[in-house]
Amino acid sequence: MKFVRYEVEDQKYYGIVENDKVKEIEGCIYGEYEVTDKERALDEVTLLPPVEPSKLIAIGLNYLDHVKEGGADREPPTEPLIFLKAPTSICGNGEPIIIPKQASLTHYEAEIGVVIKNKIKRVTEEEALDHALGYIVANDVSERVFQRGDGQWTRAKSFDTFCPVGDYIVTDIDPNEQKISCHLNGEVKQDSNTNNMIFNIQKIISYVSDQMTLLPGDVIITGTPAGVGPIEPGDKVRIEVEEVGVLENPVVAEA
Amino acid sequence: MKFVRYEVEDQKYYGIVENDKVKEIEGCIYGEYEVTDKERALDEVTLLPPVEPSKLIAIGLNYLDHVKEGGADREPPTEPLIFLKAPTSICGNGEPIIIPKQASLTHYEAEIGVVIKNKIKRVTEEEALDHALGYIVANDVSERVFQRGDGQWTRAKSFDTFCPVGDYIVTDIDPNEQKISCHLNGEVKQDSNTNNMIFNIQKIISYVSDQMTLLPGDVIITGTPAGVGPIEPGDKVRIEVEEVGVLENPVVAEA
Repeated sequence: MKFVRYEVEDQKYYGIVENDKVKEIEGCIYGEYEVTDKERALDEVTLLPPVEPSKLIAIGLNYLDHVKEGGADREPPTEPLIFLKAPTSICGNGEPIIIPKQASLTHYEAEIGVVIKNKIKRVTEEEALDHALGYIVANDVSERVFQRGDGQWTRAKSFDTFCPVGDYIVTDIDPNEQKISCHLNGEVKQDSNTNNMIFNIQKIISYVSDQMTLLPGDVIITGTPAGVGPIEPGDKVRIEVEEVGVLENPVVAEA
Repeated sequence: MKFVRYEVEDQKYYGIVENDKVKEIEGCIYGEYEVTDKERALDEVTLLPPVEPSKLIAIGLNYLDHVKEGGADREPPTEPLIFLKAPTSICGNGEPIIIPKQASLTHYEAEIGVVIKNKIKRVTEEEALDHALGYIVANDVSERVFQRGDGQWTRAKSFDTFCPVGDYIVTDIDPNEQKISCHLNGEVKQDSNTNNMIFNIQKIISYVSDQMTLLPGDVIITGTPAGVGPIEPGDKVRIEVEEVGVLENPVVAEA
């Protein structure tokens, strides 16, 4: 199933996509809801980022080849490395990634994200996937000079538009067996599979829920494979996660 | 003026405190609102944390004496050091600080916080305070072993209950001239003044707004003076900010 959020005549809705149609949902996709018969053509609605999380959590250094491209002697983490991005960094598919004036070296990072369904605390790995509503494509855009210089990664990764997400929350897939890639201006830059993650999705959900209560709609993006690199105004970034979809964003300079 | 959020018979309200009474507010304290004549005795209502931010931003190393207590050779930051705490870490005055099972060295940190009134981006220092609704007392509770070990401070500072906040959002004070103190079990541990902050409140608001859009209700806590130290189950932590109020929390172990 593919959940979307969309706007029609200044009203916002959740819906389900089937072929070229979107069916309106009544209720809350994280709780009780009903798929109605109210149908619209997909190209008649404006799709919005499908998530509005109270927490946008990210996992660092979760692919060994990315750990090593940051330094051959760098050791992989022994537990998931958690950080937070500001929810205001979220933007939608097709929206521009805006490079802020103060940035000098901004990178793309292709990732799969999990959208949390229930309020959870200290769930086991065995039950973890039952608490996932579905999965999204994400780009963990990162300013490297600030990331290194600040020590804390928050600022480097929280600029407005620094977390583009795909149009869909996709359910009923195996998140740990998805081809994941990034093309920059048509050239392949990242090409991996989520089965290369050091910590799989159930471990990540369980571990994060040991540290903090997760709320319905919270999002965890789960790290990027090797091949990260710079983006500049004029570029086009295209991230694809096999069964989740495509996320494409142009890059512009801050006005 | 003192804004509060409170509950009566499962209904939540914002209000204004005058003497021992709370007057109900209609509307949004971040936008248009009216103080009504509906009055209740303060001891008839349950006070809630007055803030529910979309972002809980924190500033690290903002008092020189605290920078130096972490290492005599440690240099103060040249710009405010931004990190994020999970909003789920917020708890109210009087609620227990729960030390999670995995923690081994948890510290208190007395801070003043500013509550943002408007949606803002790139505001100047001159106009910054016009965008502050008011100020809160906060405790930036921090697990030191994880803070050092993880590199990223997120996990160490985002456990549930690791951000107690006072009952009031207080307006019309000078946030940069407030005595700030922390007592642990009656003994003074931190005793300073916000005029010792390396970056004052207007600089912090302006700087953070250069990095990300701030939304109404977002909170920035602004760093702690020297004297941080451990808390353990059975302890009582009392933080006072001169004109903002008192924040008192018992410490318990996770069940």
